Amino acid sequence: MCNILNSINNPQDLKKIKKEDLNILAAEIRNKIINITSRNGGHLASSLGVVDLTVAIHYVFNAPYDKIIWDVGHQSYAHKILTERKNKFSTLRIYNGLSGFPKRLESEYDSFGTGHASTSISVALGFAVARDLKNEDHKVIAIIGDGAMTGGLAFEGLQNAGHLKKNMFVILNDNEMFISQKVGAVAGYFARLLTAGMARKFEEKVMQTVSRFRSFGSPFGKLIKRVKVMLFPGMLFEEMGFTYIGPVQGHNINNLIIMFENLKDMKGPVLLHVITKKGKGYIHAEENPTKFHGVEKFDITTGKIVQKKEITYTNIFSDTLIKLAQNDKKIIAVTAAMPEGTGLDKFAKYFKNRYFDVGIAEGHAVTFAAAMAANGMRPVCAIYSTFMQRAIDNIIHDVALQNLPVVFVLDRAGLVGEDGSTHHGIFDLSYLKYIPNVIIMIPSDGNELQHMLKTALNSNKPCVIRYPKKSLCTSVVLDEVPHVLQMGVATILKSGSDICFLAVGDHVWTSLQAANLLAEKNIEASVVNMRFLKPLDVHIIMEILKKTKKFITIEENVLVGGIGESIKSFLCNSEAIVECVGLPDEFIDHGNIGLLREKYGLTPRGIVEKALTIL
Amino acid sequence: MCNILNSINNPQDLKKIKKEDLNILAAEIRNKIINITSRNGGHLASSLGVVDLTVAIHYVFNAPYDKIIWDVGHQSYAHKILTERKNKFSTLRIYNGLSGFPKRLESEYDSFGTGHASTSISVALGFAVARDLKNEDHKVIAIIGDGAMTGGLAFEGLQNAGHLKKNMFVILNDNEMFISQKVGAVAGYFARLLTAGMARKFEEKVMQTVSRFRSFGSPFGKLIKRVKVMLFPGMLFEEMGFTYIGPVQGHNINNLIIMFENLKDMKGPVLLHVITKKGKGYIHAEENPTKFHGVEKFDITTGKIVQKKEITYTNIFSDTLIKLAQNDKKIIAVTAAMPEGTGLDKFAKYFKNRYFDVGIAEGHAVTFAAAMAANGMRPVCAIYSTFMQRAIDNIIHDVALQNLPVVFVLDRAGLVGEDGSTHHGIFDLSYLKYIPNVIIMIPSDGNELQHMLKTALNSNKPCVIRYPKKSLCTSVVLDEVPHVLQMGVATILKSGSDICFLAVGDHVWTSLQAANLLAEKNIEASVVNMRFLKPLDVHIIMEILKKTKKFITIEENVLVGGIGESIKSFLCNSEAIVECVGLPDEFIDHGNIGLLREKYGLTPRGIVEKALTIL
Repeated sequence: MCNILNSINNPQDLKKIKKEDLNILAAEIRNKIINITSRNGGHLASSLGVVDLTVAIHYVFNAPYDKIIWDVGHQSYAHKILTERKNKFSTLRIYNGLSGFPKRLESEYDSFGTGHASTSISVALGFAVARDLKNEDHKVIAIIGDGAMTGGLAFEGLQNAGHLKKNMFVILNDNEMFISQKVGAVAGYFARLLTAGMARKFEEKVMQTVSRFRSFGSPFGKLIKRVKVMLFPGMLFEEMGFTYIGPVQGHNINNLIIMFENLKDMKGPVLLHVITKKGKGYIHAEENPTKFHGVEKFDITTGKIVQKKEITYTNIFSDTLIKLAQNDKKIIAVTAAMPEGTGLDKFAKYFKNRYFDVGIAEGHAVTFAAAMAANGMRPVCAIYSTFMQRAIDNIIHDVALQNLPVVFVLDRAGLVGEDGSTHHGIFDLSYLKYIPNVIIMIPSDGNELQHMLKTALNSNKPCVIRYPKKSLCTSVVLDEVPHVLQMGVATILKSGSDICFLAVGDHVWTSLQAANLLAEKNIEASVVNMRFLKPLDVHIIMEILKKTKKFITIEENVLVGGIGESIKSFLCNSEAIVECVGLPDEFIDHGNIGLLREKYGLTPRGIVEKALTIL
Repeated sequence: MCNILNSINNPQDLKKIKKEDLNILAAEIRNKIINITSRNGGHLASSLGVVDLTVAIHYVFNAPYDKIIWDVGHQSYAHKILTERKNKFSTLRIYNGLSGFPKRLESEYDSFGTGHASTSISVALGFAVARDLKNEDHKVIAIIGDGAMTGGLAFEGLQNAGHLKKNMFVILNDNEMFISQKVGAVAGYFARLLTAGMARKFEEKVMQTVSRFRSFGSPFGKLIKRVKVMLFPGMLFEEMGFTYIGPVQGHNINNLIIMFENLKDMKGPVLLHVITKKGKGYIHAEENPTKFHGVEKFDITTGKIVQKKEITYTNIFSDTLIKLAQNDKKIIAVTAAMPEGTGLDKFAKYFKNRYFDVGIAEGHAVTFAAAMAANGMRPVCAIYSTFMQRAIDNIIHDVALQNLPVVFVLDRAGLVGEDGSTHHGIFDLSYLKYIPNVIIMIPSDGNELQHMLKTALNSNKPCVIRYPKKSLCTSVVLDEVPHVLQMGVATILKSGSDICFLAVGDHVWTSLQAANLLAEKNIEASVVNMRFLKPLDVHIIMEILKKTKKFITIEENVLVGGIGESIKSFLCNSEAIVECVGLPDEFIDHGNIGLLREKYGLTPRGIVEKALTIL
């Protein structure tokens, strides 16, 4: 079934394939991607969208000498298959297998690792500058989606690149713009004219077009817009010092190859605007690219996603926020391009005017929310834990310093599993803890989450609520009405005098199970749901200290700077012996969450083992 | 001397002044600003540049009902004088006096606090959205410099504002663009045409202009550029959905007033491009705006800055880097718009090709450096501690995760004094500590700094060196050749068995003095220069633990997440008693550094007092 792909191990092999066979090759690659992601899950739609583009890039450029830099990197599956990883592709996203993102340690073809959006232009510029200083001549090609282009970092990169005028390519992979055939055709014509060096003829053409507009008698604004589009497609980029070319159709491999051949020796920074279709080649993904963006296992024929019925924090957050917003007009929801992932898509249906998707722009999301809070609103800003790393100064400088009532909801906190090292939300407790004025809450189940959301919105303070996607607590019953919790107060779930587990989040449940395991050995453990990292309930700890001197803290965060360190620090001058369960001071690879938790002792047995070291 | 200003306490008073007297008023305000900053220090040049603009804004708009939002905020002195703070202005930047930046707690006229760049557009949009949801009708006006416009956050704000189409103004205060009279005149004409609603006539004019170009026979590229400038000044902003108006001259108060009157009821987002001169009205500042950007005390007549001869880390870093770069072509220097402040201006003179000022774009600076490191270079990225808060994810995701050898040099770490809460570099130890793979060094004097720089460049790892501007060690002798330090190894400066001081940075010297004070009481203290926060020298601590059980940690960082917490955490299960000297879990106001250190116990006496609590 993969006759052509069989003969290809690396880009050198690819270059031997006849041009007329490349479409078949692309289809074979797509098949492989669909097959593997249907089993392993993954970023299907975006990877399918750039198969043709990837084939053309590797056909013309010479990786790894030429540096190909993927933005976000979730679209790099075809790249991986074509660069010596075809045979390992079945291990995609599996522990010890291929990463779902480019990774320098995995392959020399992966020039730069990524996972977060909008870095590629800065990266390409860095590569180009270093190249010139070393008097080398490799090409540098960044491929960035239109979504990632909304990030401020992309703009900073564009601006600096336009200024430095280094030779580099930015391929704007535009898969959301639905341009009409007519505009597309004209623009495509422009692109061909430019690359063929037919500038003179183009000039005449432009002038004819402009003159024609005079007789239209169109209103001023409309005229300006039309002239602008006709005269200067992509002038945003031109204005920043780039040569803009496009838009061009991104699924015609042979045309793309001709284009790249024409372009590859162009001087200065070049932006090539390519139009692709997300999910291209798999009908279910084409029809529903959002569903197939990041997908779990699915049935290839029906496109049905194999979904386990699981309680997700995301759903409970979403439902609770809608409930609370019905009675409070001040509640606003802000997302940075993650309406489905954060559950705010549902909110958007109920409260269109109070819902804001700002694009991939976490910094702006936070500062924008801060200003709304300053002007009397109660914004709830829902951003994944790992992406909030991009807005820490906005939290410090715009929210916390002014003590503004913004509620931050960090979904995907803790280990995220298959997305791996760039996506684990394992730093948030540490990057938030030291910020003055901020309340940090960690629900142990969905019921607590709804109360925490109510508490946060009621607090008139900057508040953070962090939770993983799925709850470990399998049988949660939601109270009918969310109520306000006492700020900074933990709860004792189980009393025992031999040892005390101080846990946050889902690991309250792991700790309860650990306590049960210990009970079998006639060891009695207390289990405390700490609820708040800040303010930390030191009173409860002092109370417990009267009965036991042995403590285990449990958190799904790196231990450095986490709650364990806070508690150890607090108990330093007491007689207490404290050990911490959590993640080590290293980046954690991708793999099944259960397996990773096992590895790092975030399981009932792991907690028991840690407990036995001090019992 | 201040006859008109005498009669003004707030913007309502200002509106009673005759238009022909406004220039005199502006001169009086300038006088006041020059007088006070000559005594208190401050941001003189930028504040002088916008006096006329500020008068015009307050003449037309109705603060505090209308919301005026300053970007960075160092240019807000005239605003402060005109909004009920004239009589307190002599306390500018003094402890318990007026802040040098807008501050919500200080005045209801300060709609939003700031200090870091590029936030104002996001903030203005947040205010506008909240206003519309509340069915209010106040105006929102952001004033942003051309420098701040390079920050990605500004772009994210522009883009979202252009999309949401709320009524708001962004005044681009452009003080670096030196446009010729002619271009300025044409552009000014455009602006007047637009605001007067003469769109129709404008359309004809445009067409005449475009036609005329046909006969020039100019080369294609040149033609395109001219047409673009003529047709669409500021099309960068137009493209993002703003109505662009300008550029207009920013020192003609009466014209500005007419302009604002014309504009104030315009719909949608409007960008008004105003050209001003930094330092306007004070000859020394006009001639040398960089010197008078952020200035210490100076002599008004001569413009001479009262400088104390002090050893600065900045100079030693600068000299050492030049020395090392002479023998290593891989060394690159990167700054984010702070060439003078970081000392890299000197490097730029020696190594023009290896020096990069990327503008106010800290995130890009870090990611750009990461890519250069990935392509074989040894970038040194020098950014103030407080501004590095904006690039934490870039450090995590682009540098540390890939273990790339980028050296981060954080100047202005610890308390910065008069610039206050937005500028203190008191969070860096906490925001860096939990990042895997990163080495964190804290020099105790300039000599150690040079060795640390050598060590960092030699390490092949991500390294951070953080230091304050001025050294507390007054008699440092520099070794002739910088050498490599042993990684993670502390040094014992003084041995004593009653108590041990574990200090970092300048407070190694404070601790030595504290030890001397204790010696007078016959108490013998050890003093350890920890040197590294990471890796932490736990071996030396274990060694000392054999002799003494009492420890005091000393750091100029918030205690939450700092080195004290690490050490307490490490010693938790031992018999040691540990107390920490450092900054509390709150934002610290502005004021003289010595005074602030006194307040928070970061003095020999403060350390002694803390020591006595456990002796």
